[in-house]
Amino acid sequence: MKLRFFACLFAGFLASTAATTIAAKETPLVLKKIGNFFVGGEDKSLAPGSDITVGQMYVEYKIPMGTTKVPVIMVHGCCLSSKSWQETPDGRMGWDEYFVRKGHPTYLADQVGRARSGFDAQVFNEVRAGTRPPADLPRILWADHQFSWRVFRFGPSFGEVWPDGQFPVEHIDQLYKQMIPDLNAQLPAPNPTWTNMGKLAVQLGGAVLMGHSESGFFPARAAMLDSAGIKGLLLTEGSCRTTQSTTALTPADIATLAKIPTLILWGDHVASEDPGTPFGDCKIYTQIMKEAGGDITFTHLPKIGIFGNSHMFMLDKNNLQVADVVLKWIDQHVH
Amino acid sequence: MKLRFFACLFAGFLASTAATTIAAKETPLVLKKIGNFFVGGEDKSLAPGSDITVGQMYVEYKIPMGTTKVPVIMVHGCCLSSKSWQETPDGRMGWDEYFVRKGHPTYLADQVGRARSGFDAQVFNEVRAGTRPPADLPRILWADHQFSWRVFRFGPSFGEVWPDGQFPVEHIDQLYKQMIPDLNAQLPAPNPTWTNMGKLAVQLGGAVLMGHSESGFFPARAAMLDSAGIKGLLLTEGSCRTTQSTTALTPADIATLAKIPTLILWGDHVASEDPGTPFGDCKIYTQIMKEAGGDITFTHLPKIGIFGNSHMFMLDKNNLQVADVVLKWIDQHVH
Repeated sequence: MKLRFFACLFAGFLASTAATTIAAKETPLVLKKIGNFFVGGEDKSLAPGSDITVGQMYVEYKIPMGTTKVPVIMVHGCCLSSKSWQETPDGRMGWDEYFVRKGHPTYLADQVGRARSGFDAQVFNEVRAGTRPPADLPRILWADHQFSWRVFRFGPSFGEVWPDGQFPVEHIDQLYKQMIPDLNAQLPAPNPTWTNMGKLAVQLGGAVLMGHSESGFFPARAAMLDSAGIKGLLLTEGSCRTTQSTTALTPADIATLAKIPTLILWGDHVASEDPGTPFGDCKIYTQIMKEAGGDITFTHLPKIGIFGNSHMFMLDKNNLQVADVVLKWIDQHVH
Repeated sequence: MKLRFFACLFAGFLASTAATTIAAKETPLVLKKIGNFFVGGEDKSLAPGSDITVGQMYVEYKIPMGTTKVPVIMVHGCCLSSKSWQETPDGRMGWDEYFVRKGHPTYLADQVGRARSGFDAQVFNEVRAGTRPPADLPRILWADHQFSWRVFRFGPSFGEVWPDGQFPVEHIDQLYKQMIPDLNAQLPAPNPTWTNMGKLAVQLGGAVLMGHSESGFFPARAAMLDSAGIKGLLLTEGSCRTTQSTTALTPADIATLAKIPTLILWGDHVASEDPGTPFGDCKIYTQIMKEAGGDITFTHLPKIGIFGNSHMFMLDKNNLQVADVVLKWIDQHVH
């Protein structure tokens, strides 16, 4: 038992030095608890005597042994699932496991309408049966190989890589396989994923919310609906939606958001930093929060000497180095 | 009836003494490795310069420490995902974790076309755009609350429970939330899930395949396509498809299948055991395999003193007692 205790300590020590990424992978993963459940969801009647549940959010969790740090709720981007945060295309440890090894319980959510959260299929069968017009179908999004390569910034054009690119392009087929159809166009407003993220944070007695890309601003959206459980916002590689008039922040939104420590994270090779672009908007958002007295950090990885990261930084070859930036920020800013 | 009542009590007693069950849950879960990857899948061109991947199968795995037993590949049923094998609706340990704690590496697959495996969305957007007729849409299956209750045998009719029913109906909302749309009608023949199950077994250097309900016979289907990696077949609560002429087994199929140790498992309160029903077909299948010299076991749980199990035996209150039946069979029959 004592031996085991020291083995654990040793594992913790190994995991805490960035250089020992590989060693960490080879030490056992010791979990206090692992499981999954659903948050949210409501009954919908299709016909008398026929009810289904829609709007639920699948969440899988891992709780490490010992004293734990703040839980982190991770939400994936467009045309992806929670797989984003897990094993990389080339078989290395993902952020999920790494955060757990660093003492954070993790909660990975499949967005409502996607993957294990399911979607509302009623309209599809009604259109098939001819009782509704085809135009009623929601537009389904997907990212083809060419789009992924370009938008995820693996290189300047499809098939071409950045000289310093960190994405393991030699295993890109595994990334292509994790690109799945996105039915968010079907969701009601506000997006139930936002509501469910906030609910989960409350249920956990406080959590940091992390979004990515399509969900990059979801943590803030969740906070604007209910900030009670939200201890930190990790807005990565997404739009900050501040300059579009339809989604402009109200003074009340700003007051709410400025109370929550926030990290904005961007990788390398961003095409444009201009206002109106996601990156540019996030700079403006940062300024707004600073002016409101918020604790906000804008981290552009190349500016801190970490180069070549793609949009999928959590899968890049240096993914744990990037994770360390986030983990350190949490340690320093979230209380 | 009285006898049955006491037998039931006894079963309950066994389930709760599984003194090991409760203790097991509270001891840490120590994993050598955890992760997920995709098996199979192929490129599909949507247009010049636009390719996607379809037919891939998401697989998540857990490998226990120390000497391991044979890996078990678990595949879920209709309108469900791998969630079936994990945490129960009332928060108890699922089969996935239990098998790992018993020394089996586990591989949980989301069926092709479902959950994290994604689906091919092209036809949906084409119908929406008016370039294809609505009749081209695949029929999407789902199980409404009423269907689930009845077909999963939680009770004789919706809202009513069997007196000895083992399903945790007080938490049925969590089951309803895991029911998701099923797009298998869209899949090519043979179903890529069958092919991918066989591929994965080879990749692992041998594995036992377990199917349930819709996928109850998938392990046998996989073996008929490529039996090289398949060390055992666990056919649970599904059709055995032997009496339908369109899917009758050939002598070559029978010879292949009879070489693989097979367990057929059924719970309680089966509506009919007649030929032509799934249960009845499985009895015939058992006879065919026996006549061909196969090592096959047909386990009808009430016949061995385990009562009240639903179609979702892996989520029932005595789920680990049922797991023990399967684990013992593997130990005794799979080499």
